[in-house]
Amino acid sequence: MDNVYLALDDAALAAEVDRLQADVDALAAKGLSLDMARGKPSREQVDLSRSMLDALDSGSCLEDQGQDAANYGVPDGLPSARALMASLMGVPASQVVVAGSSSLNLMFDCVAHGFVRGVRGAKPQCAQGPLRFLCPAPGYDRHFAVTEHFGFENVPVPMTPEGPDMDVVEGLVADPSVKGIWCVPKYQNPCGITYSDETVRRMAALRPAAPDFRVYWDNAYAVHNLYDEGDELLNIFDVLAGEGRDALVYEFASTSKVTFPGSGIAAVAASPADIADLKGSFAVERVCPDKMSQLMHVRSFPDVDAVRAHMARLAEVLRPRFELVERRLSEGLGETGCATWTTPRGGYFVSFEGPEGSASRIVELCRRTGVTLTGAGATWPGDDPRDSNIRIAPSYPTLEELDAALEVFCACARLVSAQLAAEARGLR
Amino acid sequence: MDNVYLALDDAALAAEVDRLQADVDALAAKGLSLDMARGKPSREQVDLSRSMLDALDSGSCLEDQGQDAANYGVPDGLPSARALMASLMGVPASQVVVAGSSSLNLMFDCVAHGFVRGVRGAKPQCAQGPLRFLCPAPGYDRHFAVTEHFGFENVPVPMTPEGPDMDVVEGLVADPSVKGIWCVPKYQNPCGITYSDETVRRMAALRPAAPDFRVYWDNAYAVHNLYDEGDELLNIFDVLAGEGRDALVYEFASTSKVTFPGSGIAAVAASPADIADLKGSFAVERVCPDKMSQLMHVRSFPDVDAVRAHMARLAEVLRPRFELVERRLSEGLGETGCATWTTPRGGYFVSFEGPEGSASRIVELCRRTGVTLTGAGATWPGDDPRDSNIRIAPSYPTLEELDAALEVFCACARLVSAQLAAEARGLR
Repeated sequence: MDNVYLALDDAALAAEVDRLQADVDALAAKGLSLDMARGKPSREQVDLSRSMLDALDSGSCLEDQGQDAANYGVPDGLPSARALMASLMGVPASQVVVAGSSSLNLMFDCVAHGFVRGVRGAKPQCAQGPLRFLCPAPGYDRHFAVTEHFGFENVPVPMTPEGPDMDVVEGLVADPSVKGIWCVPKYQNPCGITYSDETVRRMAALRPAAPDFRVYWDNAYAVHNLYDEGDELLNIFDVLAGEGRDALVYEFASTSKVTFPGSGIAAVAASPADIADLKGSFAVERVCPDKMSQLMHVRSFPDVDAVRAHMARLAEVLRPRFELVERRLSEGLGETGCATWTTPRGGYFVSFEGPEGSASRIVELCRRTGVTLTGAGATWPGDDPRDSNIRIAPSYPTLEELDAALEVFCACARLVSAQLAAEARGLR
Repeated sequence: MDNVYLALDDAALAAEVDRLQADVDALAAKGLSLDMARGKPSREQVDLSRSMLDALDSGSCLEDQGQDAANYGVPDGLPSARALMASLMGVPASQVVVAGSSSLNLMFDCVAHGFVRGVRGAKPQCAQGPLRFLCPAPGYDRHFAVTEHFGFENVPVPMTPEGPDMDVVEGLVADPSVKGIWCVPKYQNPCGITYSDETVRRMAALRPAAPDFRVYWDNAYAVHNLYDEGDELLNIFDVLAGEGRDALVYEFASTSKVTFPGSGIAAVAASPADIADLKGSFAVERVCPDKMSQLMHVRSFPDVDAVRAHMARLAEVLRPRFELVERRLSEGLGETGCATWTTPRGGYFVSFEGPEGSASRIVELCRRTGVTLTGAGATWPGDDPRDSNIRIAPSYPTLEELDAALEVFCACARLVSAQLAAEARGLR
C-alpha cells in the first residue's frame, strides 16, 4: 500500500507530525533503556544450555575416539566434534577443521590465509593489486569489517528474496581483483531469507576470473529454525560435487547460538584440496584448538538429533519474540504504508525498510527515546545508499521489554516518515 | 674437558666406533618407540588439573564481577581473568587482554596486526619493503614459523647464558626493516636460562630505527619453576616505566602448561597505547573470547598464590624427569668430553650441544633406534650453522620411558661423536 502521509493535505500532515511528535515525547518521558541492537540470546535462552556444564567433571574420561582431549595435539579438532559439525554442514568429517570458539575468527583466518600466504599457491593477495570482495547488502556488518580490515574494497550486491542478485554476482566475478563473496545462505542476516535452490546452483556454477576467489558460506543459522518446519537450504557441496569441482567454497558454522554465545565450537569445511591448503596456515597459528570445550560439546550433543532437539527448546523462547515483532510492526505501521519488513522462519533478525532517508533518523530518534538499535547503515558496506534499512534484533530483551521497545520503534518510524513527507513539501 | 675420541690413536678409535655401533645395534633390537620431541606434559601431570572440571556445573553463577560469562560481550576478557593474568605478568589489568586458548595464536594475531593494519598508525608492514625479525637461537621453532609465514627474513642472534647477545641486537635494530625480536625471557626454550637483569635493561633501552618494532616477550614459563626457589626475571614493564616509554614490548602468557595443554587461557599485555592499538584489530577478529573457559580457570585459580601452589605440585612430577636427564647425560657423556647441556631450574627443555655436524646425525640415529627427538635445526631459524644443537623435552614420557630414551640418546651421541672423529681422520 502507499505511504498514507503522502496523501494528506498540508494542514493535515502538519497536524499529524505534531501528533506523532507528542506520542514520541510521551514515550521519551518514560526514561526507557532498551536494547534491540545485537543478535544476542536472552538469559532465558542461554540458561537452557546450562546442563552442558555437567558433561565433564574431575572423574570423566577425557578421550574421544582414542584422542586425548586434555593435552596438545589433534590440530584439526576432536573426531566427534568434526563429525558433529560435518553432519550439521552436510560434508564429510575429513573436510572439516574444528577450531576456536567463534566462526568469525575462522573467517578472519581464512581471509588472512589468502592475504598472507595465498590460496592454493596463488600469489599472496597482499602482493597483488587492488582487492575487492562482494558484500550482499543488507548483510552482516562484522563480515564487511573483516575484508575492510585487510584493505579490500567492499562491493555491495543487492539482496533479493532469493539471495544475492546472481546476475550482478556473475558479472562482478569476471573482475580478477574480486576475491570472494560473503554469504549467509540460511536465514540471512538481517533479511532472514534462505537462498533459493537456483541461487545456490548459480553460486556453485560461478567461474570467477580469480583462481583465488572463494565463496564464504557462513551457515551461521543452519539449525536455527523458529518452527518445526524450517527452510531448506540446498547443500552447496553436493552441487559442487555434481559439477566435479574441487574448490570455490569455504563453509563456516558454529554452536555460538546453540550453546553459550561466544563460547561455542566453530568449524570450517572446504574441498579436500582447499582444506589441506588452509591447514598449512592453521598449523602456524596455533598448536591445537581448545579440545576440552569440544569434548564438553560432544558429550552434551552426541549427534545432530540432539542439537535439533535442543534448538526446538530454544525456538520456544525465540518464536514469541519474532511473532511479537511481526504483530507490533503490523499494528503500528501496517496502516501507514511507509515501511516493509521481513518475517523470517529462523535466524536472529528482522530486516526493516522505511522510506528513503529515514533509517539514520529513526535510529537516532529511538536512541533519544531510550531504545538502542543496530546503527543505520551497519547492514551495508560503507553507507546504505537509500538510508532506509534497519536491522531489528529481537532475541535479547524479555518479551515485556521487547514490547516496549517496539512501541517506541513504531512511534519513531511513523514520526520520521511523516516528517520526511512534510519536508518534501517544504512544510518544515 | 676435551673430546676423548680425538685423543685415541687410529686403531683404538676404529675399535671404539665398532664397540659403540654394537651398543646402538643392541638398543635398536629392543624395538623401542619413545618420544622426547615436544614440550608436552605427561598424563600424570595433566591429571593434577582435573579438579578444574568441577569448578562449574549447571547450578553455577555464571557472572564474574558483574559481567556475564555465558553470553556475548566483554571482548577484553573477564575481569578476574584479566586480573589473574596481569598479576602473573606483573602489569595492571587494564593493560591486559585475555583471549583464546593459546598464546601462540595471540602472537600470530599481533604479527598480523602489524602486517595488515600497521602498528600505531605506521604503514602496514605488508606494504613496506623487506621485513626482518630477530630470532635468538637456539630458540622456539613455532615462533620462527610465524614470522616466516608472514614473509619476514628471520635473522638469528646468538644466545648467551644471560640471554640474547645484546651487542648484536643493538646493532641490528638500527636497520628499519627489523620489526621485532622473539624472546622467551624466563627458562628460555630450549636453553632453560633466564635473562639477566642487564639483558632486560638493555632490551628495554633499545632505540630501534623502526617505530613499529616490538619486543615479543613470550613469558611462557613465568611460574614454571622446578624448585621452590625459582629464577627471578626483572619486570620489563617496570624498567620501561622507569624510562618513561609508552611502547616497545608485547608480553604474552598462558595457562597452557598450568592447566590443560591447548585448552588454557592466553593473554597479551602491552603499554596502554599499544594495547588500545591491538584492540583495534582484535575487535575485527572475534566477537569476544571464550569466557566460559576463563570462568572455569578463575574459579579454580582465584589468584596467583593458587597458581603457584598448583605449579609446585606439577613440579613434583617434572623435577625427577629433569634430574634424570642431568644424571643420564652426565653418566653417559660426561666422560667423553664431546657434549655440553644446560641444567635449567624451570621450563620444559634442556639444550644439548654436540660436536659440530653431529645434531642431524644423532637425531636420525635415535629415530632409527626408536627414539623421536625434536628435529635437528628446529631450534634455529633456517639451519643450525654448526649442526650441533638438539632440544631435549623430558616432560611427556614416564620416568621409565625417559630412562630408556636417554640411554639410546647417549649411545647415539657417543657413536656419532666417535664416527665424526674417525671421519675427520679419513678412517671411514
